[in-house]
Amino acid sequence: MSRYAEELVDGGFAIEVADAPVLHEGLNVADMAHVLVLRERRVVPDGSARRLLGALMDAVRTPVAEFGYDPAHGEVYNCRERRFAAQIGRDAGWLHAGRPRREAVRIAMRLRVRRDTADLIEAAAQFAHAACERAIEHAETLMAEQTYLQHAQPSTFGHYLLAMVYPVLRDIERLTANLDWVNRSPAGAGGVNGSPLTGDRERMAELLGFDDVIEHTRDAMWQADGFTEVVGTATGLVTTLAKLAEDLEIWCSGEFGYVSLADGHTRTSVLMPQKRNPYALTMIRGEAGVLIGRLTGMLAVAKSPSARSDNLIFAYGEVPRALDLALRATRLMTGVVGGLTVDAERMYAALEGGFSQAADLAEHLMISSGMDYRSAYELVGACVRRAAIDGLRGVDITGEMLDAAARELATADPEWWLRTPVFAGSDLSDVLDPRAIVRSRLSRGGASPDVVRGMAKECLDAAALALSAVRARRAGFDAAESAVLRRAVALVDGSRTPFGELGRTQSP
Amino acid sequence: MSRYAEELVDGGFAIEVADAPVLHEGLNVADMAHVLVLRERRVVPDGSARRLLGALMDAVRTPVAEFGYDPAHGEVYNCRERRFAAQIGRDAGWLHAGRPRREAVRIAMRLRVRRDTADLIEAAAQFAHAACERAIEHAETLMAEQTYLQHAQPSTFGHYLLAMVYPVLRDIERLTANLDWVNRSPAGAGGVNGSPLTGDRERMAELLGFDDVIEHTRDAMWQADGFTEVVGTATGLVTTLAKLAEDLEIWCSGEFGYVSLADGHTRTSVLMPQKRNPYALTMIRGEAGVLIGRLTGMLAVAKSPSARSDNLIFAYGEVPRALDLALRATRLMTGVVGGLTVDAERMYAALEGGFSQAADLAEHLMISSGMDYRSAYELVGACVRRAAIDGLRGVDITGEMLDAAARELATADPEWWLRTPVFAGSDLSDVLDPRAIVRSRLSRGGASPDVVRGMAKECLDAAALALSAVRARRAGFDAAESAVLRRAVALVDGSRTPFGELGRTQSP
Amino acid sequence: MSRYAEELVDGGFAIEVADAPVLHEGLNVADMAHVLVLRERRVVPDGSARRLLGALMDAVRTPVAEFGYDPAHGEVYNCRERRFAAQIGRDAGWLHAGRPRREAVRIAMRLRVRRDTADLIEAAAQFAHAACERAIEHAETLMAEQTYLQHAQPSTFGHYLLAMVYPVLRDIERLTANLDWVNRSPAGAGGVNGSPLTGDRERMAELLGFDDVIEHTRDAMWQADGFTEVVGTATGLVTTLAKLAEDLEIWCSGEFGYVSLADGHTRTSVLMPQKRNPYALTMIRGEAGVLIGRLTGMLAVAKSPSARSDNLIFAYGEVPRALDLALRATRLMTGVVGGLTVDAERMYAALEGGFSQAADLAEHLMISSGMDYRSAYELVGACVRRAAIDGLRGVDITGEMLDAAARELATADPEWWLRTPVFAGSDLSDVLDPRAIVRSRLSRGGASPDVVRGMAKECLDAAALALSAVRARRAGFDAAESAVLRRAVALVDGSRTPFGELGRTQSP
Amino acid sequence: MSRYAEELVDGGFAIEVADAPVLHEGLNVADMAHVLVLRERRVVPDGSARRLLGALMDAVRTPVAEFGYDPAHGEVYNCRERRFAAQIGRDAGWLHAGRPRREAVRIAMRLRVRRDTADLIEAAAQFAHAACERAIEHAETLMAEQTYLQHAQPSTFGHYLLAMVYPVLRDIERLTANLDWVNRSPAGAGGVNGSPLTGDRERMAELLGFDDVIEHTRDAMWQADGFTEVVGTATGLVTTLAKLAEDLEIWCSGEFGYVSLADGHTRTSVLMPQKRNPYALTMIRGEAGVLIGRLTGMLAVAKSPSARSDNLIFAYGEVPRALDLALRATRLMTGVVGGLTVDAERMYAALEGGFSQAADLAEHLMISSGMDYRSAYELVGACVRRAAIDGLRGVDITGEMLDAAARELATADPEWWLRTPVFAGSDLSDVLDPRAIVRSRLSRGGASPDVVRGMAKECLDAAALALSAVRARRAGFDAAESAVLRRAVALVDGSRTPFGELGRTQSP
Repeated sequence: MSRYAEELVDGGFAIEVADAPVLHEGLNVADMAHVLVLRERRVVPDGSARRLLGALMDAVRTPVAEFGYDPAHGEVYNCRERRFAAQIGRDAGWLHAGRPRREAVRIAMRLRVRRDTADLIEAAAQFAHAACERAIEHAETLMAEQTYLQHAQPSTFGHYLLAMVYPVLRDIERLTANLDWVNRSPAGAGGVNGSPLTGDRERMAELLGFDDVIEHTRDAMWQADGFTEVVGTATGLVTTLAKLAEDLEIWCSGEFGYVSLADGHTRTSVLMPQKRNPYALTMIRGEAGVLIGRLTGMLAVAKSPSARSDNLIFAYGEVPRALDLALRATRLMTGVVGGLTVDAERMYAALEGGFSQAADLAEHLMISSGMDYRSAYELVGACVRRAAIDGLRGVDITGEMLDAAARELATADPEWWLRTPVFAGSDLSDVLDPRAIVRSRLSRGGASPDVVRGMAKECLDAAALALSAVRARRAGFDAAESAVLRRAVALVDGSRTPFGELGRTQSP
Repeated sequence: MSRYAEELVDGGFAIEVADAPVLHEGLNVADMAHVLVLRERRVVPDGSARRLLGALMDAVRTPVAEFGYDPAHGEVYNCRERRFAAQIGRDAGWLHAGRPRREAVRIAMRLRVRRDTADLIEAAAQFAHAACERAIEHAETLMAEQTYLQHAQPSTFGHYLLAMVYPVLRDIERLTANLDWVNRSPAGAGGVNGSPLTGDRERMAELLGFDDVIEHTRDAMWQADGFTEVVGTATGLVTTLAKLAEDLEIWCSGEFGYVSLADGHTRTSVLMPQKRNPYALTMIRGEAGVLIGRLTGMLAVAKSPSARSDNLIFAYGEVPRALDLALRATRLMTGVVGGLTVDAERMYAALEGGFSQAADLAEHLMISSGMDYRSAYELVGACVRRAAIDGLRGVDITGEMLDAAARELATADPEWWLRTPVFAGSDLSDVLDPRAIVRSRLSRGGASPDVVRGMAKECLDAAALALSAVRARRAGFDAAESAVLRRAVALVDGSRTPFGELGRTQSP
Repeated sequence: MSRYAEELVDGGFAIEVADAPVLHEGLNVADMAHVLVLRERRVVPDGSARRLLGALMDAVRTPVAEFGYDPAHGEVYNCRERRFAAQIGRDAGWLHAGRPRREAVRIAMRLRVRRDTADLIEAAAQFAHAACERAIEHAETLMAEQTYLQHAQPSTFGHYLLAMVYPVLRDIERLTANLDWVNRSPAGAGGVNGSPLTGDRERMAELLGFDDVIEHTRDAMWQADGFTEVVGTATGLVTTLAKLAEDLEIWCSGEFGYVSLADGHTRTSVLMPQKRNPYALTMIRGEAGVLIGRLTGMLAVAKSPSARSDNLIFAYGEVPRALDLALRATRLMTGVVGGLTVDAERMYAALEGGFSQAADLAEHLMISSGMDYRSAYELVGACVRRAAIDGLRGVDITGEMLDAAARELATADPEWWLRTPVFAGSDLSDVLDPRAIVRSRLSRGGASPDVVRGMAKECLDAAALALSAVRARRAGFDAAESAVLRRAVALVDGSRTPFGELGRTQSP
Repeated sequence: MSRYAEELVDGGFAIEVADAPVLHEGLNVADMAHVLVLRERRVVPDGSARRLLGALMDAVRTPVAEFGYDPAHGEVYNCRERRFAAQIGRDAGWLHAGRPRREAVRIAMRLRVRRDTADLIEAAAQFAHAACERAIEHAETLMAEQTYLQHAQPSTFGHYLLAMVYPVLRDIERLTANLDWVNRSPAGAGGVNGSPLTGDRERMAELLGFDDVIEHTRDAMWQADGFTEVVGTATGLVTTLAKLAEDLEIWCSGEFGYVSLADGHTRTSVLMPQKRNPYALTMIRGEAGVLIGRLTGMLAVAKSPSARSDNLIFAYGEVPRALDLALRATRLMTGVVGGLTVDAERMYAALEGGFSQAADLAEHLMISSGMDYRSAYELVGACVRRAAIDGLRGVDITGEMLDAAARELATADPEWWLRTPVFAGSDLSDVLDPRAIVRSRLSRGGASPDVVRGMAKECLDAAALALSAVRARRAGFDAAESAVLRRAVALVDGSRTPFGELGRTQSP
């Protein structure tokens, strides 16, 4: 029977124990490393250390569901304590030397979150790669840039898509900085003011593959800013992807018909046989919304006095789950982008049917006739309004139509006579040709196909670099964690490692 | 093999299927009721209806984990469709007549949330009950009211505690209004504009124990405002409880020592043997923070065009889980309040050691001497500052000390000679007695013990009323849902119920 | 020179004083009523009361900007205190009798928020009215209902628009309940445990036009739940309007071309002469986002121990400003809906070009041929896919095409021969006619024009009722507040009103 | 009369125009730089350029309130256009060449936010400085570290305070990275796909003192991630300060009495003469809550399709205002920390009265007797419980008491006889001396005074470095902006600067 009130079990421990699946592996590693250090420092007797490591190795082989995590006995750490005591008796008591429960769990959480962060970086880099490839493919696929969903100026689908890559690359940089924060060791903080037992804190950091020690012990134990931050970055990333998803959803409509999703990213209606719903997009948008809430929740939890247990208890599960959701959304959007069918003809038809050349025409009039931009703008505006009424398109505009517009304006303000030269007879075909317009966007970052291809190649390089860096980093985590396990195995197997040898690997 | 891309399964269906446990029961009931109505309306042939109901009864008996919910085959509804088709072949195809998947799930969600809401009302009423009882018990336990954690005026722990009951009673009213919203039927909306197949929408509402039909079919299908609202109310409720928790945490400190938690609501440190941590309180505070995030997430998800699937897909799981968290927090706080040990002596000692009588003294001077309040306040202020320096307490103040204070003030402003009568010799003992002060708070809602006891009794009545009302309501849900099952059983068992008889229970 | 540190002035008082414009009027009324009550209870001498009321009447005539609110001297209340003392000397000191600063400000805030809430109810009712009128006008304007922006089933623009009215009507109900909370009196709470000076709390409530007294004095002083709630309702309301705005924005695109905004609700581009941007819609969407943040901020502020000043200090400005933003958004959307041009032909052309009849066709096959819905759905699905490839539309489907689809399905599964009757020769024109389909949606809440008109009329009635109720309520606030001023004037003018007479005017 | 509907003016333009004060200066600079570039590229005729620059210089001299920003005429940019046209007629029309309104405002916003960010970095560095100095001062001021507000282990106030510096230093690093994002140029993006008119984008970046050009033009125009991020960092910073504020508020209570605020950071009650409320702390806590909401609001606004005007329209005002609030909070906390009075005696008395040595005692028993930690912990726990009942303190524990505890445990489990040596006669005074315990925390980051002083010195260096770096950066902004103005003045004054010369000053 539990010594705890039932409502505490339900309203406290059960909530913590629900996070056992995200903490179990990390706790095994953290506990083993702690015992290794205690043994190196001759705090724990050798036999006890071996028995403890044996129990921990058994924990490694035991799936979470069978481990005996049971809120009736407290939170995750208590459940482990109980199991170890049942297995090896008083020897289990050495595990707690110099270390509060929270230190064990903080380490476990970081071991988990550093992998989650690395996975998200990898997925983001893969998205960037996929989007760049499609951007190169569509560097000449003309499309009207839109603001307020109204046609603005001629551009390309490639230029559009590439605009989604840059924020993702920035998020990769942020996630990398977040990972630097995550991958530092809180170990050796004792009851927050440092522990005389566990000795030099670098040793534990090194064993666990952390990049460094978190300097101040109280900060080491209680800092949560980087956890909030990494969830914030993940939220930002998915919000960017959701913007892409929302654009695509609109362009997937029959009315736009610009793009369509691969079959594997849609689902059918169970009532309406004609429907093929872009389900993937709706999920990504919703996931962005959920993540906004997760981030807000972490901030609200953080609003409390300092060193409050709830600041991190809830983060244990919230952070990995938020990162997992972001990972799924990112992978999904990568698939969607890769599988997208682009209807370049529909895009061009829509562009050609509108007046997206108007600003270029006005600029042309300004340059060629010396009128100020506002005047050129008004003239073109009058011309466009008339053309629209007459069912004409931007490409149909002629010098004669501009002259007619000037006459119209002059009825209200005769100054227009002075302001406007005669345009009749001028050849506007180049000025009005969307392809020529796009080709003219040669300045840095513009829509001209060569500029787009150049940028895309740089982004591809950046993505590739990020990918290889994060994979190397993850390999380092793997190596450190297996080394801990190997040391434990070696000790338990009796092949007593001389302290000196262990010591050698310690420091540079 | 799935027809869906792996990333869609992971980033879409897996997220939906994770909610199968909260939807399974409701879907069984919703599907059975739909078949019953289709049969009543002679849309589905009798034999097919029986076979379908048989498959559904089998679903009722199958635990979620064994049902075969598998994201590779789509979301929850698809998985059911697949299982039923495997069991009974083409007859399963009748289930979709006149009803999109979303209608089934919307109904299931409401069946679930109406219970969750009822449970939370019950728990809130139980909290109110427990807190009222403790308030009555401590109607005469003197304590300094605090603002900014500084002593304000003498009051009682009972008056304090009762102040937590009123917002909870308001939340019960809100939850009851939320339940009215939840317990209405979206059924019969078809593909959003109504269905000619499923006929009069009252029938389905009645079968499922809904209070009414949601009028407009598009609104019926897509409304989510009430779900956000019920999460908002739950968040408000737990935020109130978290305020109580934070107060108690401070008062549990050794420095205050006003209260302590029952053993069953604390936990020990694994490092520090002397500690007995009020863990329950920390969890409640954190839960409030998590809930703020859940609410925000729902609002962020809702920010989209209308009729977007994500608006409700994520709510399916988020709402029941948020309500469950609120339920656990409420029950935990009820336990904490019930188990609290109050150290009336420490409370009184702290009160007696301070100057919480100062405002009453100033009011007394104002009334008795005719000086304006600001002047009386300045005089008492000067007196109190001096007394504090001299190591005296509020109860030690004498008329002589007031006279000394007046003299001190008069050195800067001789007007004080005119303003102040002689106080030496006046008996201030009653004015300064905290008990007398508390007894003087006789106006509506004040701290006088009789007033507190009177309010507590009214609150107890309100809580009792809420409790019996919500229990009756939940009994109604049970009755309706079992009736659906019984009808299904009766039909499957071949005891063919004549339509007429079924019909009789339908209306008025 | 300020006795306060500069950083406290900037980081504290300046923030409070920025809210002087929203509190000034209410403080004048609250202070006058307090003096009137103190005088009635013979706490303050007559002459002092008259001078105080004189200073307050002067405050009424002084615009906020000239009043002398200056953070160097503290927050709003301190600034008033300072001015009154400068004007009338020690007599100003009576103002503080029996009342902390917070009580004055709490009352002022409620006087303000009750008007803001009433204004928002009025605006929401006006939106409902406008939308109903347009819904009636477009009860027969056919449009394809969309989910995932894919055509679902034939419906009408009227049915669509009316779906936005129902949530707004629910928000009106919520706002009305919020107003009930707001319009209750916290007065007479003293230093939180009640005041023996100010006597029966009903008197103050009555003077100020509050519906009732907030029972428990500590709750009366510190409750903030209803302020959060009213901001929550306002946020919900604007989120609904933002959904409408986002739909309209999509439908305003050239590609959809379903609707266009009145000129007065658009703005032009300064660069692109052809653009006419639906600026109103973008603002409403953004306002919903801002409000979500305001609500979250209030919840985060509330997460603290109880009776913390910050819980309400920030609410003083946040609540009125949030309600004002919601009011502007609501009025804007009312204008947009009223000024909307609907292109019924484009809507119909889009509908006719698609396959939104598919589900109705499948239901027809199910009913007429006895096949289960899933089979009928598959058959129609195959038929629709082929028709789409052949460039045909839903209205072009014939019995022969269905037969061809059945043959196609039978090549994979010969069962289809058994399952499918011959359809060649059947007249599907009625089944496929979108108008006939819409007319068939006769059940409660459906899209049939008569049903839509019926609902719209009920909604119009509800809106009218809400409008007249809230206007009556606001008239009551006006009457109470002017009565306070009149009493003050009467007293100051020396026409000493006998207490008895004052008493008589008290009640209805 | 406005061409706009009144509700659009109120619900749209008025909201934008309210941000004129934060945009005015930046717009003047952005417009001048744009004209300078147009002139350099010979797009605008010289005379027109001079007249335009003249109008802009007039704008520089005109206070916002007198400029004529009036929502009836549109948003901020429109109002400027209108004023310039009124002043110089058609010449004003050149301002719009090659640049949409949004580009002007985006630049203005960045000019503003880069200063705001620099100011916040400066304030954060000053906080770090002040806190480090107090930490050094209190490196030997003993205090019980607390978790759950229960005494944990002996530590110092200096160690505690320094723990607040580290997160602030991290936030300074984050803000510096944020500033890198902010201080990049979006200019030259044209209608989003680049402009052929404004030429090489580096020129504009250089003129405005931006570090670099934002590569992709669409991203340049629409990116908002860094604005959300900088608000996120500011929120994190203030949340850390709020934790400190909440701790101090508790320690300011009479019951704790550990610290008190300087008079200039408190305020008095207007009712209760004895109160001296730590008002500064309550404001900081509330400001953290408000900022959480501001961040959430920005995220919610960002949840939309891409390139939506509302994504940045609301940010124009929200970001500078959020940063300003954070600045005020940071400066306030710096003042509070600097002015804090620490009562070392009360801290020590509280520490000495408790049992915070228990873990150290258990570790001592473990090390000295070879018993496992759990056993030592249980023994000490039993001893402490008994001591508490007997009214003894941690420092009073003796070997005899430990023996008695062992006997007590042995009654339930005789194994305790084997496990426990005799402690009677051992000298525990050093083990139990809080000062000795603190001195033993010598490992990296621990509470030992020398370690604390060493860390504080490193932090002081980091703060000083940050301070000088950010001041240099701000000087760079000043220089660039004045140079723009000087160029404009030079041109207007007719001292026609040859293009070549302008070019020469361009680069370092």
